[in-house]
Amino acid sequence: MRIAQVAPLYEAVPPGAYGGTERVIAALCDRLVAGGHEVTLFAPETSETAAVLQSYGEPLRTRFSAEELVNLAPHLHLEMFADVYERSEDFDVVHSHLDIWTFPFTRLSDVPTVLTMHGRLDLDFLRDLMPRYGSVPLVSISDDQRLAVADLDLTWAATVYNGLDLSAYAEVQHDSDGYLGFVGRMAEEKGPLAAIEIARRTGLPLRMAAKVDPLDEEYYEQEVKPHMEPDVAFIGEIDELQKPEFYAGARATLFPSDWPEPFGLVMIESLAAGTPVIALRRGSVPEVIVDGVTGFICDDVDEMASAVERIAEIDPEECRRHAEKFSDEAMCRGYTEVYERLARERSARR
Amino acid sequence: MRIAQVAPLYEAVPPGAYGGTERVIAALCDRLVAGGHEVTLFAPETSETAAVLQSYGEPLRTRFSAEELVNLAPHLHLEMFADVYERSEDFDVVHSHLDIWTFPFTRLSDVPTVLTMHGRLDLDFLRDLMPRYGSVPLVSISDDQRLAVADLDLTWAATVYNGLDLSAYAEVQHDSDGYLGFVGRMAEEKGPLAAIEIARRTGLPLRMAAKVDPLDEEYYEQEVKPHMEPDVAFIGEIDELQKPEFYAGARATLFPSDWPEPFGLVMIESLAAGTPVIALRRGSVPEVIVDGVTGFICDDVDEMASAVERIAEIDPEECRRHAEKFSDEAMCRGYTEVYERLARERSARR
Repeated sequence: MRIAQVAPLYEAVPPGAYGGTERVIAALCDRLVAGGHEVTLFAPETSETAAVLQSYGEPLRTRFSAEELVNLAPHLHLEMFADVYERSEDFDVVHSHLDIWTFPFTRLSDVPTVLTMHGRLDLDFLRDLMPRYGSVPLVSISDDQRLAVADLDLTWAATVYNGLDLSAYAEVQHDSDGYLGFVGRMAEEKGPLAAIEIARRTGLPLRMAAKVDPLDEEYYEQEVKPHMEPDVAFIGEIDELQKPEFYAGARATLFPSDWPEPFGLVMIESLAAGTPVIALRRGSVPEVIVDGVTGFICDDVDEMASAVERIAEIDPEECRRHAEKFSDEAMCRGYTEVYERLARERSARR
Repeated sequence: MRIAQVAPLYEAVPPGAYGGTERVIAALCDRLVAGGHEVTLFAPETSETAAVLQSYGEPLRTRFSAEELVNLAPHLHLEMFADVYERSEDFDVVHSHLDIWTFPFTRLSDVPTVLTMHGRLDLDFLRDLMPRYGSVPLVSISDDQRLAVADLDLTWAATVYNGLDLSAYAEVQHDSDGYLGFVGRMAEEKGPLAAIEIARRTGLPLRMAAKVDPLDEEYYEQEVKPHMEPDVAFIGEIDELQKPEFYAGARATLFPSDWPEPFGLVMIESLAAGTPVIALRRGSVPEVIVDGVTGFICDDVDEMASAVERIAEIDPEECRRHAEKFSDEAMCRGYTEVYERLARERSARR
C-alpha cells in the first residue's frame, strides 16, 4: 500500500530523547517499509527513516521560541496538510499523528485518513470538536483513553498500543537486586515525589532518569529537589541507547503517574528489560500491567511501597514475554489491519 | 457570479456595535446581491444579510470565554473552511476575510480564492508565513498596509478601501460649532490621552464614544479616567444608528491613532457626516484625508491642537464628496473587478 505518515513538526522522527509520539512514528515507518509498503513520511528534515521523507526544515523546537510557536506552529502544520492533501491521490491511506488539526482536510479528499489520538481526550474543547467529525476513523492508544469521550458519536477504528523496538532490550540482563527506577518528565502529574517517598519507606536507592522541561523547572527546584535524599540519584534525561541498561539495572520501575496517562511507554520499556512495574491504577495501566504477573497495580503510595517487598514474586521472563504484545511489530500489524480495512471500504464505496 | 463570502465567526454580520470587518462584509454582501450576484455568506446565525446565509451558531464571543476561544476558535474556523471548500465548485470565487487561516485550503481547489488582509501586517510570524503562499491573490485595505511586507514576494490583487453605507449620513447636518469627537476603542494605541490633551489646550468640549474591551479595562481605569476633565464626556460605545448624529455634532473628529492603522473607518464616517478629521500621520491616514481639504494631517499633538483652530478652512461639502470614494458602492465595485479578473484568469488557464 501507499501510505502517508504525517508527524508533528516539533521534533525529529525519531526524536533525540524524550518524545513518545515521534518514536512510535519512526518505528511504524521502518516496519511498514520492511513489510513492503510504500511510505512517505511528512516530518522535520533531521528525521531518519526508511520511508521517503518529505521534509519541513529543522524541528520547530530548535527554530522558534515557545512564544513564537504559539502563533506559527498551527500554520506550519496546516501548510504540511495542504501538501499532503494536494497529492492525496498518491496515497491509499493517510495516517496523521496531529489528530484534530487533520479533521478539516479529511472532508476534502476521497482518500481515507486515520488519526491516532496521542493525547488525553478529557478536555472540554475536544468534546465540542470531535463529534463534528464523527465519521473520521480514529485510533486510540489504549481502550481507557476513549472513556472520556465514550458518550460521543465517534468512529473508533481500533486501539493500537504504542510499540517498542524490543531488540535493543533483548541483550540486557535484569538485576533483581538493583535500585528502584523512575523515568519520565519531572512534572507533578508523573509523581516524582511519590517515587521518592516509596524509596524512603523501603530503604532502597532510587534513580530518576527524567527530563526537566522549562515549564517544569520551578516545580523541580522548589518541590522535588529539597526532597532528594542521599540515596536518590537524579541522572537527568537518558536517550534510547541508555534506556535498556537503566531499566535492566532496576529491581522495579515505579510508575506513580497520577493522571489518566493515555498509554505510558515507560511501562513497556521496563517490561522489555525484564523489570516489573509498580504502578498506580490510572489510565491505561490495567491494560498494560498484569497485576501480580508483570508487576503490581496499586491504589496509593502505601500499596506501592508494600508491593516493592513482593517484587520477588514476579518472573522477569513473564515481563519480557508480555512486552511482546507491545512490540513495534504488533503495532505495525495493528495499523496495517486498519489501513487495509479503510482501503477495502473505499473500494466498496466506489 | 457565484460568490462565497467567508466571515470570522466571533461577531454577527453586521455586528451589534464595534466590528469594522463584519460591517464591511455585511455591506459588501448586500451590494453584491443588489448587483445581481449569487452570494453565499458563511457567518454566525444571527447575521442579517441579503445573501444566502450558511450559518454557524451564535457568535463565538457570546458562546465562549476568551480562554476557551484560544483552543476552540481556530478549529471552528477550519471546520467552516472545510464546508466552503468541500463545495467550492458551487462558486466562481471564494472571498475570505479570515486571511492566513485560509491559505492551506487555497491549494486544494481550482476555484480562485481572494483574501482581504484586514489586520496589521507588521508581525514577525506573518513575514515567515505569507511568502509560503505567494501566489494567493491578496487585497489590502490601504496601500500603506502593504509597506511592512513590501520586500516579500506576494500577489497583491488590489487595494480596496473599506466602504461605508453613506445613506444614513445623508440626512444629518454638520455643526461647525460643535464639540471635538473621538470614536474608537479605549486603547493606548488609539490615542485617547492625546484627544483629551488637545481638548484641554483648545478649551473645547470633547466627547468620547468608545468601547472599553475587557483587555483595556485597566488602561482605561488607571490611565484615562483620572484625566477626564469636566468638559470631557465619556459616552461609551455607540451603535450604527447613533453614529451619524454623533459625528455631525462634532466640529472635528480627532484621530490621534498612534499605530499604523491599516484603514480607519472612523475617518470615513466623520467625512460622511461633513465633519473634518484631524489625524496623526500614521498608516492609511494620508490616503484617506486630503490635508487642508477634508481635514489636517499632523505630526504631533501640538500640530493637532493648532489644526483645531483652522477647522473653519474646511468645507463640509468637500468632506462629504470625498467620502464617496469610500462608499460601500465603491468598495463593491473594487471587489467585483477583482472577482471578475480572477474568474477570467481561471477560464484562461483551463
